[in-house]
Amino acid sequence: MRRKKIYEGKAKVLFEGPEPGTLVQYFKDDATAFNNQKHGLIAGKGVLNNRISEYLMQKLEEIGIPTHFVRRLNMREQLIREVEIIPLEVIVRNVAAGSISKRLGIEEGTILPRAIVEYCLKDDALGDPMVTEEHIAAFGWASPQDLDEILQLTLRINDFLNGLFLGIGLKLVDFKLEFGRLWEDDQMRIVLADEISPDSCRLWDVATSEKMDKDRFRRDLGNVEEAYQEVARRLGVLPEAGPVDIKPPRVMQ
Amino acid sequence: MRRKKIYEGKAKVLFEGPEPGTLVQYFKDDATAFNNQKHGLIAGKGVLNNRISEYLMQKLEEIGIPTHFVRRLNMREQLIREVEIIPLEVIVRNVAAGSISKRLGIEEGTILPRAIVEYCLKDDALGDPMVTEEHIAAFGWASPQDLDEILQLTLRINDFLNGLFLGIGLKLVDFKLEFGRLWEDDQMRIVLADEISPDSCRLWDVATSEKMDKDRFRRDLGNVEEAYQEVARRLGVLPEAGPVDIKPPRVMQ
Ligand SMILES: Nc1ncnc2c1ncn2[C@@H]1O[C@H](COP(=O)(O)OP(=O)(O)O)[C@@H](O)[C@H]1O
Ligand SMILES: Nc1ncnc2c1ncn2[C@@H]1O[C@H](COP(=O)(O)OP(=O)(O)O)[C@@H](O)[C@H]1O
Ligand SMILES: [Mg+2]
Ligand SMILES: [Mg+2]
Repeated sequence: MRRKKIYEGKAKVLFEGPEPGTLVQYFKDDATAFNNQKHGLIAGKGVLNNRISEYLMQKLEEIGIPTHFVRRLNMREQLIREVEIIPLEVIVRNVAAGSISKRLGIEEGTILPRAIVEYCLKDDALGDPMVTEEHIAAFGWASPQDLDEILQLTLRINDFLNGLFLGIGLKLVDFKLEFGRLWEDDQMRIVLADEISPDSCRLWDVATSEKMDKDRFRRDLGNVEEAYQEVARRLGVLPEAGPVDIKPPRVMQ
Repeated sequence: MRRKKIYEGKAKVLFEGPEPGTLVQYFKDDATAFNNQKHGLIAGKGVLNNRISEYLMQKLEEIGIPTHFVRRLNMREQLIREVEIIPLEVIVRNVAAGSISKRLGIEEGTILPRAIVEYCLKDDALGDPMVTEEHIAAFGWASPQDLDEILQLTLRINDFLNGLFLGIGLKLVDFKLEFGRLWEDDQMRIVLADEISPDSCRLWDVATSEKMDKDRFRRDLGNVEEAYQEVARRLGVLPEAGPVDIKPPRVMQ
């Protein structure tokens, strides 16, 4: 089947979907870090992230969080609703790690006094700079009402995922979300978009503190594929056939 | 050690604690159902509920839910902060079962359109009748502000526990909470009190739909102890020695 490519990002490709208002999200094995300075491949990552994100979005829908997810199509693709992406990376931190440790001089692993939500402007050229509600309102990236809705959804997602990952022996240290506007008969709803996976979460094994996420790639810790597989296995979504591959769709020019 | 008994309930005994403002909560094996008409013992239940409730309260504290829990003292006792119990049973339902199925004619197992929160007046003599916010405000059981705080905490607890139980392969069908007022230097805070355990939750195995909670006792399904043990095991809190017993404290007359 030929599909029209809409956008190619660092970890995924978006194709035109079968119906208006839908897209096909194709998960690649490509990994990037440090604002695109480090590139690599994590074999089978796309297959696993497709499953992990499917599972998490479905379970979030079940507790009443609206998402863009429609259904998984195959090993690397899922059908999603096309949304108007709000150009913010919404970051939730339960434990200090990564940029907040560096920026505020908080030792990695320090439990934060409460969950901290940060917003970064989604702009690779600028290196996704952190912004405040002031900037977001002034530049109109999201209205105060939209941002309030996003914050409420984000805190619910954090509570649920904290529980879910704890249940499988993983500490949810931090994660990144993206939201979009979905229009239906002149009514706008904010829905969770993009993906939730070890690419976008920091997950530490509760017993051993081992990192089970993209930090293994960022910091050259080895066993990167194995960590993604272990997360999928614990969630009960490891494909039995293993990360068997399919070819990306041929692109219509 | 002799401790002054403050109150003996159906499943627990409260003793005077070591410091003012504290109590010792002793977990019994006694089980009752159908408004006290059915009585029985579930061997080792008190030991398991003590551990399970300890674990859940600790994890809820970690995500910022204030609770009465201080620390576990031994196999059957935990130290708690004494609170002024709000005389409401706060019930959260994700799936129809038990009284709501009967009352509203909804088949057991029906997924509810969203989480439904109900309040019952905690009064055994009246059979814990359901009440509305109107009754609660009119009779002053809780102020509208207190009830709002209780509802917000309850919804957060539901999100977290839904995730946690899902992670260990259990569906959180419904559960009952109690809250209390904790006074500290003229400041009042609402905190989670009582217990969270298979006595107060309905938990269904995700794979087999088997009931893993007090309904095994209520409905004479057998393997009651085994179900409580399995919940503790999956949460990682099954005492290695098994539910080894200790004697209840001698009561001071
Ligand atoms: N439902 C959706 N509708 C439209 N765009 C989406 C949707 N979900 C995610 N996206 C966008 O698709 C892209 C996903 O590909 P990715 O490789 O992550 O890109 P990037 O390198 O820009 O982060 C992102 O830019 C994301 O904002
Ligand atoms: N922190 C606390 N301070 C005071 N009372 C409490 C606290 N936590 C629970 N309780 C009360 O202690 C009793 C627990 O014992 P239980 O056997 O469950 O009693 P009951 O049969 O009344 O439900 C309940 O009445 C409950 O409301
Ligand atoms: Mg991206
Ligand atoms: Mg009780």
